[in-house]
Amino acid sequence: MSEALRVGIAGLGTVGASVARVLTEKAAELTRQCGRPILVTAVSARSKGRDRGVDLSGAVWFDDPVEMARTADIDVFIELIGGDEGPARESVRVALENGRHVVTANKALLAKHGLALAGIAEEKGVLLNYEAAVAGGIPVIKTMRESMAGNTVSRIFGILNGTCNYILTRMEAEGISFQDCLADAQRLGYAEADPTFDIEGNDTAHKLSILTSLAFGTEIAADDIYLEGISNITQADIRAASDLGYRIKLLGVALRTESGIEQRVHPTMVPTASVIAQVNGVTNAVAIETDILGELLLSGPGAGGNATASAVVGDIADIAKSRPGFQHGPVFGRPVTELAPYTRAKMRSHEGGYFIRLTVSDRTGVFAAIARRMADNEISLESIVQHANGHNSADQKTVILVTHETTEAAVRKAVDGITSDGHLVDKPQVIRIERAARTRL
Amino acid sequence: MSEALRVGIAGLGTVGASVARVLTEKAAELTRQCGRPILVTAVSARSKGRDRGVDLSGAVWFDDPVEMARTADIDVFIELIGGDEGPARESVRVALENGRHVVTANKALLAKHGLALAGIAEEKGVLLNYEAAVAGGIPVIKTMRESMAGNTVSRIFGILNGTCNYILTRMEAEGISFQDCLADAQRLGYAEADPTFDIEGNDTAHKLSILTSLAFGTEIAADDIYLEGISNITQADIRAASDLGYRIKLLGVALRTESGIEQRVHPTMVPTASVIAQVNGVTNAVAIETDILGELLLSGPGAGGNATASAVVGDIADIAKSRPGFQHGPVFGRPVTELAPYTRAKMRSHEGGYFIRLTVSDRTGVFAAIARRMADNEISLESIVQHANGHNSADQKTVILVTHETTEAAVRKAVDGITSDGHLVDKPQVIRIERAARTRL
Repeated sequence: MSEALRVGIAGLGTVGASVARVLTEKAAELTRQCGRPILVTAVSARSKGRDRGVDLSGAVWFDDPVEMARTADIDVFIELIGGDEGPARESVRVALENGRHVVTANKALLAKHGLALAGIAEEKGVLLNYEAAVAGGIPVIKTMRESMAGNTVSRIFGILNGTCNYILTRMEAEGISFQDCLADAQRLGYAEADPTFDIEGNDTAHKLSILTSLAFGTEIAADDIYLEGISNITQADIRAASDLGYRIKLLGVALRTESGIEQRVHPTMVPTASVIAQVNGVTNAVAIETDILGELLLSGPGAGGNATASAVVGDIADIAKSRPGFQHGPVFGRPVTELAPYTRAKMRSHEGGYFIRLTVSDRTGVFAAIARRMADNEISLESIVQHANGHNSADQKTVILVTHETTEAAVRKAVDGITSDGHLVDKPQVIRIERAARTRL
Repeated sequence: MSEALRVGIAGLGTVGASVARVLTEKAAELTRQCGRPILVTAVSARSKGRDRGVDLSGAVWFDDPVEMARTADIDVFIELIGGDEGPARESVRVALENGRHVVTANKALLAKHGLALAGIAEEKGVLLNYEAAVAGGIPVIKTMRESMAGNTVSRIFGILNGTCNYILTRMEAEGISFQDCLADAQRLGYAEADPTFDIEGNDTAHKLSILTSLAFGTEIAADDIYLEGISNITQADIRAASDLGYRIKLLGVALRTESGIEQRVHPTMVPTASVIAQVNGVTNAVAIETDILGELLLSGPGAGGNATASAVVGDIADIAKSRPGFQHGPVFGRPVTELAPYTRAKMRSHEGGYFIRLTVSDRTGVFAAIARRMADNEISLESIVQHANGHNSADQKTVILVTHETTEAAVRKAVDGITSDGHLVDKPQVIRIERAARTRL
């Protein structure tokens, strides 16, 4: 039996407490798997007294996580504080500088400072593990860092935010509005009091930026992501999607194009018969498409104390199994110094199908005008549905267009043209359609 | 840059040739990721002359893989010969005994001799990696060996044979018979000339036995698996399943029960709205259920030269990233010496729902007799469908029963009773229903 691996946990919220409990309750099995014990020898949190359902009296208490990162008698620093600046950033930096391995669940920190921190880790020859930062309990980081060796990724996309997926799933299942779903999600603890960060797609963007770097060997570029949230999705969209054989999901998508890497987060229509369409509620999923492997889909819990703790403990166990002198793979798949600069593909060049829902005045010639705008921009239509149903007032009707593959620029020009024609009585709705395979034999 | 990792490939069929091509074509990126080059320095196959689309002239040729395992100048021995005895077994044993790492895609070999081979690997301090042996390109072995640390698995199940899933998918989609689907699958290369091993479930059982060991920390017990193939699945079953909201899949299932570990391979009804039901064609999928993480589902290509090669190359890259002196985790999650003996749960104690399809003579009292047999065995029914449709002759009808949770023993007794009552005009069909989550919010 080798020496114990000593870990210090900074942040004892839901995830931190869960990590401490798993390390304690599963100590015997972890020792068997790793060949040595894992001991929590230091902790740091805001309030010392609170009962967290685990005995941490054997660990040295630090009021300041940065002090713990600097001076504690630990091999691994576990950062579960959160936030992309302040003590989270500083403590991770100090831990790495002092030659300690770091495990973190902090996507915001990695999206913003991941390259700098990875640079320190690689220089010091220590590990920076972050499985829990993307898609919670789903082992997508390990899959991308280790299992994809030899594969060239063409596209990676996923449902990366449980709050949004919960809301969209309930909107479809129960026919209730976005606002009512959000209120319910808040009541049940699936959404924050200020839900902006989740529902406007920022959280998905942080996670996507990390996956993009791993997938394409490029520098993290979280600010270069096209962003659209789900707050303007209505029951009319959900019902129309369903009628057309689609379901609406908030996806993060990254793919390689001729002009660069396309990164985007927006509500997306996926075929109802695809596997990703069946990923419901707070569950997350990631699909990876490559030249050698083909398509891989991973789905599971994307949040929650235990699921996140599972990923953190897996990261710690990986370190426990390694031995001094062992040099693991690079933090973001390639050494930081060899990551390629990120070149952003223009959103206007995005190619794909589009769903366009228009509320128009019920006048002669409106439909012809819409069709003309589409033709002028060389957009061919897969389907056209026109109806005046109970949701419209007597002098309005709804026109729903589904396009064949076209470009973002063409669609924007067409919709601008239709708007300027003056027939619209409501804001036009445009939702991108994502090709999702796995529906075929 | 460290020294190159030297690998020898034994077996240059579809997978072996694909591995050689990936290692050659992706050499620069693999070197970047692993920190050192991976070189194919030795090869062994049956016919030396054949063009395999890759230049192997720099590698030393061996007619005998065992000789290569013993004497070649290699760090890693890649076994892609196949078969659970003969040169595959002997060459792996010799490679490990000589202190070389081994990567294999051979599930039959591991199912039969995995424990003995892992024992040698652990004694010699070398790695025995086998990602490609289960579910092809899906990284389920890495997930189970590494990402599940700290988790206690309650159930693992999956679609592990692409041939069977292809046949069942086409039977449902096109309404054609098992025999016609099989013939088509053979023509398209998705099924062997002798398909017994696939369609009777043996291949699934080999893979399941490996997953069971990883999931429950028990010795591999491939001979202790309840086995039922798909050859007796008819269109009547598929249609009835569909009407009831189910799809039929050949699953391998392992779960922990009070009396031991239940391992079974059989056609299974899963809810149409579950993710696993959407896994179509030759695609494989594995679902893992644990106490900490919850439910995880991985799906992707389960066979094919490239997908399998992807897993093999991932295994090689893991070795390339490690350095001399590094001690990785045990072959089957725990050290072989600490794997618990396998205790088989009795199949008669299996608990679950059942689909029972009976073809009976159209006489008064038949239905009452069936209901009585169910009641006598304390089986409560979720649904009963009785119809005389075009597929029955005039004096016959079909009765379809779906039970609530009951036991295998009760169902067998009830069906035996119904059979002895003399009303059946055809063999009764019994298909187990598997609870598959992920349909809920």
